[in-house]
Parts: sequence; structure tokens; C-alpha cells
Amino acid sequence: MKLDIRKLDSTADGFAARLNDVLAFEASEDAAIDRAAAEILADVKARGDAAVLEYTHRFDRLSATRMDALELPASALEAALDGLEPKRRAALEAAAARVRAYHEKQRIECGTHSWQYAEADGTVLGQKVTPLDRVGIYVPGGKAAYPSSVLMNAIPARVAGVKEIIMVVPTPDSVQNPLVLAAAHIAGVDRVFTIGGAQAVGALAYGTQTVPAVDKIVGPGNAFVAAAKRRVFGTVGIDMIAGPSEILVICDGTTDADWVAMDLFSQAEHDELAQSILLSPDAAFIEKVHASLERQIGDMPRRDVIAASLQGRGALIKVRDMAEACDIANQIAPEHLEISATDAQQWADKIRHAGAMFLGRFTSESLGDYCAGPNHVLPTSRTARFSSPLGVYDFIKRSSMIEVSEQGAQMLGEIAAELAYGEGLQAHARSAEYRLRGRS
Amino acid sequence: MKLDIRKLDSTADGFAARLNDVLAFEASEDAAIDRAAAEILADVKARGDAAVLEYTHRFDRLSATRMDALELPASALEAALDGLEPKRRAALEAAAARVRAYHEKQRIECGTHSWQYAEADGTVLGQKVTPLDRVGIYVPGGKAAYPSSVLMNAIPARVAGVKEIIMVVPTPDSVQNPLVLAAAHIAGVDRVFTIGGAQAVGALAYGTQTVPAVDKIVGPGNAFVAAAKRRVFGTVGIDMIAGPSEILVICDGTTDADWVAMDLFSQAEHDELAQSILLSPDAAFIEKVHASLERQIGDMPRRDVIAASLQGRGALIKVRDMAEACDIANQIAPEHLEISATDAQQWADKIRHAGAMFLGRFTSESLGDYCAGPNHVLPTSRTARFSSPLGVYDFIKRSSMIEVSEQGAQMLGEIAAELAYGEGLQAHARSAEYRLRGRS
Repeated sequence: MKLDIRKLDSTADGFAARLNDVLAFEASEDAAIDRAAAEILADVKARGDAAVLEYTHRFDRLSATRMDALELPASALEAALDGLEPKRRAALEAAAARVRAYHEKQRIECGTHSWQYAEADGTVLGQKVTPLDRVGIYVPGGKAAYPSSVLMNAIPARVAGVKEIIMVVPTPDSVQNPLVLAAAHIAGVDRVFTIGGAQAVGALAYGTQTVPAVDKIVGPGNAFVAAAKRRVFGTVGIDMIAGPSEILVICDGTTDADWVAMDLFSQAEHDELAQSILLSPDAAFIEKVHASLERQIGDMPRRDVIAASLQGRGALIKVRDMAEACDIANQIAPEHLEISATDAQQWADKIRHAGAMFLGRFTSESLGDYCAGPNHVLPTSRTARFSSPLGVYDFIKRSSMIEVSEQGAQMLGEIAAELAYGEGLQAHARSAEYRLRGRS
Repeated sequence: MKLDIRKLDSTADGFAARLNDVLAFEASEDAAIDRAAAEILADVKARGDAAVLEYTHRFDRLSATRMDALELPASALEAALDGLEPKRRAALEAAAARVRAYHEKQRIECGTHSWQYAEADGTVLGQKVTPLDRVGIYVPGGKAAYPSSVLMNAIPARVAGVKEIIMVVPTPDSVQNPLVLAAAHIAGVDRVFTIGGAQAVGALAYGTQTVPAVDKIVGPGNAFVAAAKRRVFGTVGIDMIAGPSEILVICDGTTDADWVAMDLFSQAEHDELAQSILLSPDAAFIEKVHASLERQIGDMPRRDVIAASLQGRGALIKVRDMAEACDIANQIAPEHLEISATDAQQWADKIRHAGAMFLGRFTSESLGDYCAGPNHVLPTSRTARFSSPLGVYDFIKRSSMIEVSEQGAQMLGEIAAELAYGEGLQAHARSAEYRLRGRS
């Protein structure tokens, strides 16, 4: 099947502009969706359970008349796990164990401990780190129901020490996804409600008679869920609103072209807006990958999505050399960066902006998506310039600790009062001066 | 001067509802301001320097015709510092040194190092930490121009290793604030543009011919600035949009009532919407503080703001005991929490949610605002339940690192393929299977 994919050459005139065209993506904000989400949120805030039940009846065709009928008991999650085919269960458990092990390392390395130090005059400064009390995890229902997402969202929260994890997952027409429920059980989710949409986001953000209010909501959802999450941000924390998924493959030309082609497919099959880009200094290799894409796409059950993605947003880019490929990668700041090359580490050292880097030809992105250990919730749409994979650090927060000694208050009080007067804040100054000996 | 401040008793009927009334604060979103900000942003994005110059002429009455005329040379910052009165200069430098020292400790403790570990089969996992490339700091002009905010926003970025810090500060009618410019010089700001409002936010977010695009924008601003920051979030990172400032004082009744009264004033003087609350188990002490507030307010230059704040949003609350005070504090999740008590640490141990804790009677909040060392940019409006003081961690980001060995790919490939088939993602599965020996 012929694939008409954009080909760029970094030495051509106008390359920078063409690259910008490839990368340009404006998330469309649908005012009607935003209004609908706002109305549902307001209604859930005002009427609680009753509103959630009505929307769940309307959108998911569930006839429950009491919220507690929409909570799944722990036994249902356990039964889902027990009902899995043994090989699939083993895979899910192995993936969870590896994700947990990685995030345990992260917890230690990423500075989730409280710390303090004393100054010579007895003043003590520091920071107290505490986990969030309660977190909500949104899990989509229907076709985009990914058990791996349950693991990736719940496990870091659990490792961080979050006391209670509440999952919401819509089950339209009462259709449950056993893999998702099994993953919730393995990940240690505490409670599961079969609700979804903006009404579920509202229930988590504001709390209802039955659903407890949480402190942060994470997890992917459709446009209504994204709009609702944006609106409740501030009342609760949220994770990033993800854009379409992206992969950038840098290949020196020494990897099997079929492998690279399949790696590009694995991103493209997510979504017609997903973006797969290849950078290589080897023009002949680029042609081989293109031929492989056209040869292999016929075997792909999701070939229509893949073709739309590759032809609409994909690109095969010839670069001068690997160093230039790294420069371009920093400009793109991709969600997923595969460096499929000999001595990949030397090139990784040049990369400043990427959600996750997959080094060497054996590290397909799909291994990272499921079971390598690191999180698959990653910054999209160039936000890797300033944000990070979902991690343990997203489920803790810090409080500054200041205990000034009487002696310390003498030195600090003079400085603070001087600056406070400079800013015209007399009560600030006086409050500091009261602590000066002989001044109160 | 009589102050009509709400008094609550935790043992009274309906206390929970009354406390909620005290805390209720709905940030008003002004649709007209939001629209105006959106238009300015779109114009700056489209026309760059020309648009910024026009808005600066219109709003700040500066007649510059070229953007480079709106950049202050380093010599201007240095001159501002040299022109300060020696005592004020020394105070500013001492504050900066202490803020720097605290954030250096934070950099070490909060996990800003890259890390990795190898598994038995040679697979290497880890996380690479890099500072942001370029950060923009918004500094308000006019009456709310706080040099301390320049230090608190710029120093953590510098300590994190940010390569370039661009400050914007409006100078309506060309009036510059020498303390602010001196603070910028001390904090190591690289470039300063005298622009403000939504146009400055747009210039930083999108870049213009003269102003380089940044990766994150931090710092407080008026409603237009806040609306613009919300809108550019996603293109760049932003810090939290702050609500009105708050202080919660827990006092066991053993601190001088005048000191506590002045601490409550020091928050109230910021803003009529600022919130000062006292919790004490000692009814007589609460009366003494109330009397002190009424006695001292006459001396305060900002007494009108203070009175509006205390009478509109303040509260004096009698609690059963110190333990209950801590429970209520966790519910309030205050921006600033003073624990003015004997052995304050025992009560601090019970606090889970607070932006910053000030322990012991010598630790007035104002010391922390200026020079104790910890950051004064803190989570407001109960967001301390899920967010943290501004810190070094806000100016770094992480990339996951995955290098799977050939041997590791055998084990991981089986798991990933099994789960990918379970999710209906065949290209993911095939991409993993290609790395299996004898399968490609």
C-alpha cells in the first residue's frame, strides 16, 4: 500500500519552516464541549450523587438509583484478576512489579524525604515532604481502555504513600473490562466507581454524599473529561492534559528497517493525530524504511489509522549527521525519543528535552509502554521542555519549615524590617521588630 | 478603632458550616479581561515586536519605536544597585544570600541529580534531570513592585541551572523602581525588558523578533497577566495562579498578644481579600488579641486595607485544644501557618497541609517573607493539599532513560506483546516481538 509521507532534507532551503509545519498542532478547544462540561460540573457540585446518577443513566445507560450500586466491591476486582487467562495475568503482574520497582527507585532518588538544617544561631530551616491524602484516577471506558494506564497512574501514587486511591471508570451499558479491573486490583486501587465523563471528574473534585473528594485527579479521558479537568484545576491538582502521542526515531542506519518501520507504526496506530518522525543521516536507509512501511502496513489491523497518521502528521527527515539529529530532537522535544544507533548513549548525552529516551536497537518504545518500568504518561506537544513523566514526585508536596531562634530573630528582624519598609509594608516591619530585644 | 471580626467556637453547633463560610472564596473570572488578554496574545503572536510596542505605548505611555529601546542594559541594573542607600543594599544582599543558601540545600535534597541502575541482564533504567533552558519572570510595576519577589522567583531558577533568565517589568510613564532593578542584578537576571501586561506574557511565550521565547513563566501579576498566563499554559510552563494571601496562626496563649495581632495585620495589609485567622484554645487570649488589634490598627498606614481584610475575611476561633487546632489547620491547608507555642515542633508534626510553617514565637511570617531563606511564593486557597512552595524543582525536568539489553528484550518483549495484544495494539506487539531472537 502506497504511503505518501512527507520527506524533508535538513540542508534544503526553507527546512526550518517546513519542520515547523510538520510540528504545528493547535489543540482545538470546542466551546460547546467546554460549556457542557461546565454545566455538568456545576450540577454535580450542587446536587452530588443525584446528579451523577442522572448523567450516568443518560450517558452510560446504567439504571442504578443509588450511588453505592455504582461502586465495585473489592471482590469484583479480585474476581476479574482470577478470571484472566494465566499468561495474561502473569504478564500484567510482571509489568506491575517492574513499574513498582522503578518507581521505588525514583522515590528514593527524586528527593521525597523531609530535610532540615540548623544554623549557628539555632535557627532551623528545612522542608517537610508529605504524600497527598487522596487521589482520583480517571480510566476511560470502551475502546481506549488500557490496563497499562491503570498501572502507570496508580502505582506511583501508591509508592508515594498516598493514603487512598479512588478510581472512576465508565461502563457504558454495564460492559466492564476485566483487564482494567484486574490492573486496579494489582495496583492497589482502594475504591472503584463505574462512572465517567465530566460527572465523574466533578464527583472526585467536589465530593458527593458517596464519592469522597480527592486532592488530585490524574489519567486520560475524552474531550469532556479534559475540559472538566481544566475547570476543576485549582480546586484539585491535575496532571497535564495530554496532546496526541508522538515518537521521534533517530537512527544511524544500522538498525533493521523493518524494526524501525514497526516502531513508527506503534505510535501511529494510537490515533490519526499521533505523530511519527524519523531522523537519519542515511538517505538509503530512509528509503528502506519507507519501503518497509508500505510493505508492512497491509498486515496491520489498524492500518487505516496508521495511514492517516503517517500521511497527515508523519515525516521522514534526512539530516547531515547524528549531531544535527540531536539538535533537531531538542527543538522537537518529543514525548518518546528512540535513539536506534550504535553507542546510543553518546547521542543521548546531547539531548536536553524528551519525555523518555529509548536507547539502542533493542529498546522499542512498546517495551517502555508496558513493562520496562518507567512511566508511560509523558509530556507531549513540546512540553518536555518544561515538564516531566508522571512520577512519584507528582503525588507528594512540600511545606517549608522555619524555626527562628531568639538570636536569629535579631539578625533577620533587622533585614526584614528594612526591606518591608522599602516595600511600604509597615505591619510586616513591625511584626519583625517586635521580635527584636528591647524593641517590643 | 472597633474591629468587627468573626468569632467562632469549635464546640458550637454548625461550626463546620461556619468555618466553610469563612474559607469560601470563589476567584471571579472576568470574561471581558479574559477576552482582552486573548486578543493581545493573538496579536503579539502574529505581529511580534510591533504589537508589543503598540500596547506598551497605549497602556504604559512609553514612546519607544524599537523593542531594543525597551531593554535595560546591565549597566542600568548595576547603577540601580549602586544607587541604593547602604543599609538597604546590605539588607537586599543579605536576603539574597540567605535565599540562595536555602535553595542550594534544596537543590541537593530535592533530587535534582540524574540517576540510573542496571539490572542483571544488562538493561539500564534511570532518569536524566536537566534544568530548563530559559525562564521568564514577570514582575509587576507600580505599587505592588516587590524586590523580594524578584529574589524569590529568580534565585531558584539560577540555582537550578537555568541558562537564561528574562525579566519583564512594566514601567508606566517610564517610572522605574530602583529596588526591583537592584534585586534583578543581585539575583543574576540576564535580560530585562520594560514591558508588562498580557503583551509581555505573549512576548515571553511566543517570542518576538527581539524577546526570546522562554520555556516557563513565573511571577505574580494583575488580572490581565493571570488570564494571559492561563492561556499560554501548555505552550510554556507557568507557576500557580495565586489567590489572595492567607495566614493561619495557632497560638497556645503564651505569646504576647501584640505580637500575634501584628502578625495577623502583616497578612491583612497585603490586600482586602487577604485572610488572617487565629486558632487558640485560650478564650481570654483571643480577647486580648482582639483588643490589641483594635488598639494597634490606628498606627498602621494601611489600616483601611487591614480593616477591610480582617472584617471581611478574618476570624478568631476558639478551639478545644491544640490538637484540634492542628486538625482544623489541615482542613484549611493554609499558605502560611504560624505555630506560636511552646514546643511548636510537636504540633508541626501533626500538620500535613501548609505552604510554609513558622514555628515558635520568634518566627514571624515576615521573616520568611524576606530573608529566612525559604521561598515566599507559596500555594494559596487550600492548594497546599497538592502543591508546594516555588522551588528549584520547578526549574528542572526529567526524562526517563531506558536502554534494554538484547537479553532483557527477550523477557520484556514477551510481556509487552502479551499486554499489547490484550489492548488491541498489534503494532506495539510486533515491535516488541521483532526484538525476540529468531522471531524477526
